[in-house]
Amino acid sequence: MDKTKLIIDCDAGIDDAQAIMLALARPDAEVLAITCVSGNTEVDHVCRNVLRILTICDHIEIPVYRGCTKALVDHGKHAKFYHGLDGLCDLKGLPEVDMNLIQTEHASCAMNRIVGENQGKITLICIGPLTNVAVALRLNPDFGKQLKKCVIMGGNTEGQGNIEDGSAAEFNFHFDPEAAYMVLHELSCPITTFSWEAVLQNQYPWDWLKRILNIKTSKAIFHSTILRTSLDKHNEWQFPGYSFCDPTVVAIALKETIVTKSRDVFATVELQGRLSRGQMVSDSRNLQKTPPNVKQALEIDRDLMMEMFSSVFEERSDSK
Amino acid sequence: MDKTKLIIDCDAGIDDAQAIMLALARPDAEVLAITCVSGNTEVDHVCRNVLRILTICDHIEIPVYRGCTKALVDHGKHAKFYHGLDGLCDLKGLPEVDMNLIQTEHASCAMNRIVGENQGKITLICIGPLTNVAVALRLNPDFGKQLKKCVIMGGNTEGQGNIEDGSAAEFNFHFDPEAAYMVLHELSCPITTFSWEAVLQNQYPWDWLKRILNIKTSKAIFHSTILRTSLDKHNEWQFPGYSFCDPTVVAIALKETIVTKSRDVFATVELQGRLSRGQMVSDSRNLQKTPPNVKQALEIDRDLMMEMFSSVFEERSDSK
Amino acid sequence: MDKTKLIIDCDAGIDDAQAIMLALARPDAEVLAITCVSGNTEVDHVCRNVLRILTICDHIEIPVYRGCTKALVDHGKHAKFYHGLDGLCDLKGLPEVDMNLIQTEHASCAMNRIVGENQGKITLICIGPLTNVAVALRLNPDFGKQLKKCVIMGGNTEGQGNIEDGSAAEFNFHFDPEAAYMVLHELSCPITTFSWEAVLQNQYPWDWLKRILNIKTSKAIFHSTILRTSLDKHNEWQFPGYSFCDPTVVAIALKETIVTKSRDVFATVELQGRLSRGQMVSDSRNLQKTPPNVKQALEIDRDLMMEMFSSVFEERSDSK
Amino acid sequence: MDKTKLIIDCDAGIDDAQAIMLALARPDAEVLAITCVSGNTEVDHVCRNVLRILTICDHIEIPVYRGCTKALVDHGKHAKFYHGLDGLCDLKGLPEVDMNLIQTEHASCAMNRIVGENQGKITLICIGPLTNVAVALRLNPDFGKQLKKCVIMGGNTEGQGNIEDGSAAEFNFHFDPEAAYMVLHELSCPITTFSWEAVLQNQYPWDWLKRILNIKTSKAIFHSTILRTSLDKHNEWQFPGYSFCDPTVVAIALKETIVTKSRDVFATVELQGRLSRGQMVSDSRNLQKTPPNVKQALEIDRDLMMEMFSSVFEERSDSK
Ligand SMILES: [Ca+2]
Ligand SMILES: [Ca+2]
Ligand SMILES: [Ca+2]
Ligand SMILES: [Ca+2]
Repeated sequence: MDKTKLIIDCDAGIDDAQAIMLALARPDAEVLAITCVSGNTEVDHVCRNVLRILTICDHIEIPVYRGCTKALVDHGKHAKFYHGLDGLCDLKGLPEVDMNLIQTEHASCAMNRIVGENQGKITLICIGPLTNVAVALRLNPDFGKQLKKCVIMGGNTEGQGNIEDGSAAEFNFHFDPEAAYMVLHELSCPITTFSWEAVLQNQYPWDWLKRILNIKTSKAIFHSTILRTSLDKHNEWQFPGYSFCDPTVVAIALKETIVTKSRDVFATVELQGRLSRGQMVSDSRNLQKTPPNVKQALEIDRDLMMEMFSSVFEERSDSK
Repeated sequence: MDKTKLIIDCDAGIDDAQAIMLALARPDAEVLAITCVSGNTEVDHVCRNVLRILTICDHIEIPVYRGCTKALVDHGKHAKFYHGLDGLCDLKGLPEVDMNLIQTEHASCAMNRIVGENQGKITLICIGPLTNVAVALRLNPDFGKQLKKCVIMGGNTEGQGNIEDGSAAEFNFHFDPEAAYMVLHELSCPITTFSWEAVLQNQYPWDWLKRILNIKTSKAIFHSTILRTSLDKHNEWQFPGYSFCDPTVVAIALKETIVTKSRDVFATVELQGRLSRGQMVSDSRNLQKTPPNVKQALEIDRDLMMEMFSSVFEERSDSK
Repeated sequence: MDKTKLIIDCDAGIDDAQAIMLALARPDAEVLAITCVSGNTEVDHVCRNVLRILTICDHIEIPVYRGCTKALVDHGKHAKFYHGLDGLCDLKGLPEVDMNLIQTEHASCAMNRIVGENQGKITLICIGPLTNVAVALRLNPDFGKQLKKCVIMGGNTEGQGNIEDGSAAEFNFHFDPEAAYMVLHELSCPITTFSWEAVLQNQYPWDWLKRILNIKTSKAIFHSTILRTSLDKHNEWQFPGYSFCDPTVVAIALKETIVTKSRDVFATVELQGRLSRGQMVSDSRNLQKTPPNVKQALEIDRDLMMEMFSSVFEERSDSK
Repeated sequence: MDKTKLIIDCDAGIDDAQAIMLALARPDAEVLAITCVSGNTEVDHVCRNVLRILTICDHIEIPVYRGCTKALVDHGKHAKFYHGLDGLCDLKGLPEVDMNLIQTEHASCAMNRIVGENQGKITLICIGPLTNVAVALRLNPDFGKQLKKCVIMGGNTEGQGNIEDGSAAEFNFHFDPEAAYMVLHELSCPITTFSWEAVLQNQYPWDWLKRILNIKTSKAIFHSTILRTSLDKHNEWQFPGYSFCDPTVVAIALKETIVTKSRDVFATVELQGRLSRGQMVSDSRNLQKTPPNVKQALEIDRDLMMEMFSSVFEERSDSK
């Protein structure tokens, strides 16, 4: 089988952990590198968390790269209200890791090198702020042209925010609006986004999640441990189901047919707003007659998604 | 029967004409004043158009007031691509009117006076940019508290724009964002908005509209005349049905039950964006814990709306 | 002697008090009205302070009008760090006044009426935020054309701010940037501004001020009383001399020759900045080839200014 | 003699050419690298121009690095009205150069490597937009701490713009405001800026320039050739003297005493303005109590500057 070659750019982060676990469990995927960026937590925490995930998943051989420590325009706001100080809820008992395993090459340089070595073959999965990708683009204007495609967790389709201060933007785009703008305008390869509204509109039964939380494999125990605190937030928000951000993006990257409804549209990013800074703005009626630059996934085949994610925690799920 | 006392603040405009015709035809409504504001076209055209409508509807006794000639922050952009230079498609054969019938009192002053004389009894219908209302508020901070309620055509629920340049805002709010901001933050009376997205999601069968366009009363002929050009635009946009803006707001003002789905929310207006300037931003998950300041109408009882609007063009519809 | 007919629009405020005292003391000036606006303090405090000043100066016959309670875009930030909660340093022993003396007509309406009754003869002195003038313009687009001229305390020539938060704008313009924008773009009559930088560059000897503070007429005692607290601020700021804002504007209105250096320039107001919102931006090299809309006073004949101001506190200075 | 080790980051550009020629002629300077960035013209033109200058100055051994092709937020506006399409006035007869001489390493990577190899010893001269430096900072947060100092052509002290559209910002900062913001906030080493206002206030006698233009060495002929067109612009602008941007920055980097007046201040960059986007905003009265992050050069020892610059064109000026 031809495996899909992946670079995963993440800010792990609880749902980044889920996404990476999914990717590693898939026999149809080959993870060439995991690159880390500041977002849910500081980049050093992200690096540590990725090493922990790789340890749990027995894939410590995958190279991990430290990327940007800040958004292009720094603001110092992480998502600690949800992911904890360290990005994985500040739990005790998570695996100890050797930070010397982090590569010395910068994430943006590594992206460029690996993509250059595998022209047209890499699927870039972006599940954090897009700072590393933006820097890769400034290092190499052709970076995007050398990708096969890019799947992004982020942005909006309906101006609905998920930032605590009530703004109209999604976290990853809001964290680094300039980077998101650069990626949408310049990446040039096929881009699929999974927006915050799509997250809200594709929720999963609590019962299904509970079954996963009760599995007792080591990966499942790690997963239920890091999920625990964040589930309280879901309770507080009174979501009707469990909302899945980053893992859905991995699923889209591996199986395009999991997207059952989408639209091709020209989209950009508001950089100047007070409430809408970082909002993805789509010309959904094509009033400007600009060719589409992005496919926005709207509906997901949830049965397939549940099947894919459940299989991560079965005994034989490992692709190694 | 107790009639609902109305002030209609408009920028007529084709759909303003429809809205005024609807209000004048209703036996349950009493139109105390029509105030004019710059928007779809310059305020002098708006005044002339209102007089034409009143002439056609045989209600020339209703006082008409000229209001603001510009948005607070002037930009000179009208909606002439849709409503024509004069706001009613630059047609020949529309009634001649005597501009001396326009009152000398400024619209914002008149609003304040009439509302002061009818404390707690006036429903303010806003179907143009909110400049006149904003100025009324600066003339009298208690203006809103003296209203019974206010129903507004305008704003967004999903960041979907209807401005030709692809921005993320609705025309009335985009035309004068500062005024919209002032109204949402300061009016204090119950406010219902009918957003652009609600317009899109509550469209009407073309067949139904065609039946109305074929009625041969004088009002119906006027109506079909002024509608003709704009229908070409609807064709170009490939809307699945006919979309009704301003008349729906009159219907909501008179019959609250016509709104079959709504949400109460704290909403404000983006003033600083490049693409989203004028966008209504709603804290739909109440992340900021601010009490709602607006009811956003989402779904309309379309059968009732069609019945109300059709009856305008029957012979005995006039409430006079 | 032909007296210059003045309307003084103020947010008194300590230096507004100085300005009004100067105007009232001048035999060449006739103050037709004092209009009040929110700025240094809330408009009700401003009204009370103006009545106090008129009482002290024995001119309680001059009509005082309450204007806007808020900037167009409300923010609730007054200049209480300098002027105290009540705008005159919260002192005891200031004259009691009868608030029923405040006219019922709104300041913006009164401006329009008085200017209409004295076409081409009124000099409008603006020593507070420009909200009242902006509303007057929306009530009557010809308001400015009916003025003789307008002299404004406000704006920048060098991007130098005087707001505590370090922004690049002058207080009056920063308090209501939209109003300042409207006035510069639409007033159409000759406008002279006295900017914050001009204040800084035209300071006065401390010794001269001390002599005035030691005069023992009732006006002088009132003046030294209300000045006392603010002088501590000047100390803290280590200004080389005493800086005079509002009274200079009155002097310019009455004697144009007091301006010894100025420039005619096209200037507008930044509305969108985070740090520079409210900054007056001048096209000083005329790169846009737009005709000047404002004369910016740069240098003042300080000897003349000192002479004019000193004479306020001499026994026979009253013009009554 | 201990030579000052320089990296020159430029967007050559006419005055960049002057600056590089000055640096190369100085016996007290060692140019380790010239890095190129998009600004006055596209980065490929900049690279070619730098090779031409090195050829003329007989220093083709100095490595030249191509950097960013666009500002972080791309806008595509170069300064071709002044520098011509190719950055050197589109002249015929300039030296042919071999573009293969451009290094393959990216400018931002090269900056980081060279600075890492010469910790604490490099003076970074920035005479173009700051995109390359910003990217270097995102590749290595400690980049600035490893510099000796940084001297920048750019920014404002008085809100005076030099962009054709009348905005309030200086070209280099306006071209990439986010990069300028990152540099001022994060570079951490001693920074000196030479602002546009300082350029205007430190002009040079036309007679002195004419003498240089009449020298007949090969460097002088190249210099007078590339200057010719731009001098017409100076005529059009009616500047009282010749204004020197980039070469002054080289002079400051080599001889700090050439700055005869300066101020240490906390400065940042307006990112959100419509007219003032890119304006350097200084808290000149330290109202925010933030420690200074920049020394703003205000006055230059012009005699010394003229002496330094004249010597470039004498026969024995070359430091090689
Ligand atoms: Ca993530
Ligand atoms: Ca309308
Ligand atoms: Ca004042
Ligand atoms: Ca340059």
